[in-house]
Amino acid sequence: MKNIQVLLKSRPEGEPTEDNFEIVESPLPEVGEGGVLRKTLWLSVDPYMRARMSTAKSYAAPANVGEPMVGGTVSEVVASNNPRYAPGDVVVGFDGWQSYAVSDGKGLRKLDPSLAPPSFALGVLGMPGLTAYVALLDIGKPQEGETVVVSAAAGAVGSIAGQIAKLKGCRVIGLAGTDAKCEYVTGELGFDECINYKTADLKTALPDGIDVYVDNVGGAILDAALRKLNTFARIPLVGLISQYNDLKPQPGPNLGPLLSTRSTMRGMIVTDHSDRFPDFLRDMSGWVKEGKVKLREDVIE
Amino acid sequence: MKNIQVLLKSRPEGEPTEDNFEIVESPLPEVGEGGVLRKTLWLSVDPYMRARMSTAKSYAAPANVGEPMVGGTVSEVVASNNPRYAPGDVVVGFDGWQSYAVSDGKGLRKLDPSLAPPSFALGVLGMPGLTAYVALLDIGKPQEGETVVVSAAAGAVGSIAGQIAKLKGCRVIGLAGTDAKCEYVTGELGFDECINYKTADLKTALPDGIDVYVDNVGGAILDAALRKLNTFARIPLVGLISQYNDLKPQPGPNLGPLLSTRSTMRGMIVTDHSDRFPDFLRDMSGWVKEGKVKLREDVIE
Repeated sequence: MKNIQVLLKSRPEGEPTEDNFEIVESPLPEVGEGGVLRKTLWLSVDPYMRARMSTAKSYAAPANVGEPMVGGTVSEVVASNNPRYAPGDVVVGFDGWQSYAVSDGKGLRKLDPSLAPPSFALGVLGMPGLTAYVALLDIGKPQEGETVVVSAAAGAVGSIAGQIAKLKGCRVIGLAGTDAKCEYVTGELGFDECINYKTADLKTALPDGIDVYVDNVGGAILDAALRKLNTFARIPLVGLISQYNDLKPQPGPNLGPLLSTRSTMRGMIVTDHSDRFPDFLRDMSGWVKEGKVKLREDVIE
Repeated sequence: MKNIQVLLKSRPEGEPTEDNFEIVESPLPEVGEGGVLRKTLWLSVDPYMRARMSTAKSYAAPANVGEPMVGGTVSEVVASNNPRYAPGDVVVGFDGWQSYAVSDGKGLRKLDPSLAPPSFALGVLGMPGLTAYVALLDIGKPQEGETVVVSAAAGAVGSIAGQIAKLKGCRVIGLAGTDAKCEYVTGELGFDECINYKTADLKTALPDGIDVYVDNVGGAILDAALRKLNTFARIPLVGLISQYNDLKPQPGPNLGPLLSTRSTMRGMIVTDHSDRFPDFLRDMSGWVKEGKVKLREDVIE
């Protein structure tokens, strides 16, 4: 058996290409004293990874060139010298783009496959789900009857944020980049509306009186959304997907509306909010089990 | 006696000119039943007035063309049919650009000239002072030892915000547009540093690790300041002087740093915070009396 690893070979300039990565085979790592060897079952591919490929100032250290690209994983323990883990255990961790990983077990969390499919720990019951939960509830603070707009509404974070907002009695409008995504967002996820931002005129399509805008993308959508804010609106800034491949920082939105509506925009990184994980896991597990929060996994073998 | 009024004659496009105003004389207004007639002693000229000249969406109704331009005033009551006010009373109000005004007295507040010069009610003990107090303390929430940056540091709001931050044990850096203003800011007001943003390279001149940025101006300074934020920084957005004369909304700052530092930017309009006026007046009166907050009035006869 070999370990197949995808190494970060060079830092992308602009959009990443295959040339920035290199697939290598290496012997399986040694388990070692106290070690836990696991086989990767699922790797989550997320927008934040683009920032990890860069050395630009960020909230986390960059991935190292010549090492496996970083990423969240669900794995099965295949050998263990650590009393807390036994072969067959399924764990969520941060093993990156490789088929096997070994460590002393720190940072792993054991999953109970009878409660939910283990892959959910990388999505609705994991980092993207917690991001949506904290961004919407703790920063967005939606009140019943308010209007909540969510960008990247078909995505891992947006789809969940919008569904929680529906559960809280809000009117929820999603933004997505294809009609098919919009159909999914309104048809399956139950958002009240979905705007295809690539074909709609945002100036007229966005509703007046946005109370919460959960933003994953920045750029022109954020600029347009600010012009529709209600007074005292809340804008959890969760991602800036539109600019992750930019070679130099682009201007942002005009902030006049933020001032005139006395609204609050707050940057949010999920790793600051692990104290909310127990509440999140209890609520979200319940919602998923009851069918109140739906999800679609995009799995590539 | 005549009432001299400065009417808003037309709405400025870009920078206001004299042609947008018209000076007219009219008879003194009748006092009427329950009325209070007063003579304007001081009129405060403030940046927010530019927004009042426009019909662009804002937090307050625009001034009407053909009527006196709006503004905060300190006046002396010259005739009164209202039992709450007597001739000789000095009041703060919102009588606008005219030498006399009459009303039923609503919205007036009587001043005690023995406590402080009445003109202070338009500055350090009035709207600009309360703006600085709430923006810095309630939104900025500075902690001892933190770094506070203040734009328009020689201005009515900035000069006070910075001095309160010094009183709270912060390191305070001001930004101003001339060396003379900077000398005043460090020499007289006691800021630790002042940067002339017109001659300095903000990328290097601004300190690393800004915890609170009290912003009055927006534009390039805000963009530069965001790149120097500490984690969990707070940015009370009090004004956007740099864009008030813009004919169309300009782009704003790149928001990448707001996200990566998990900082909070919040628009603030002083009229929302009248509940803080008693605390403000108590604290600020004390600070001014003890010489802990200094001020310079710019009076034009």
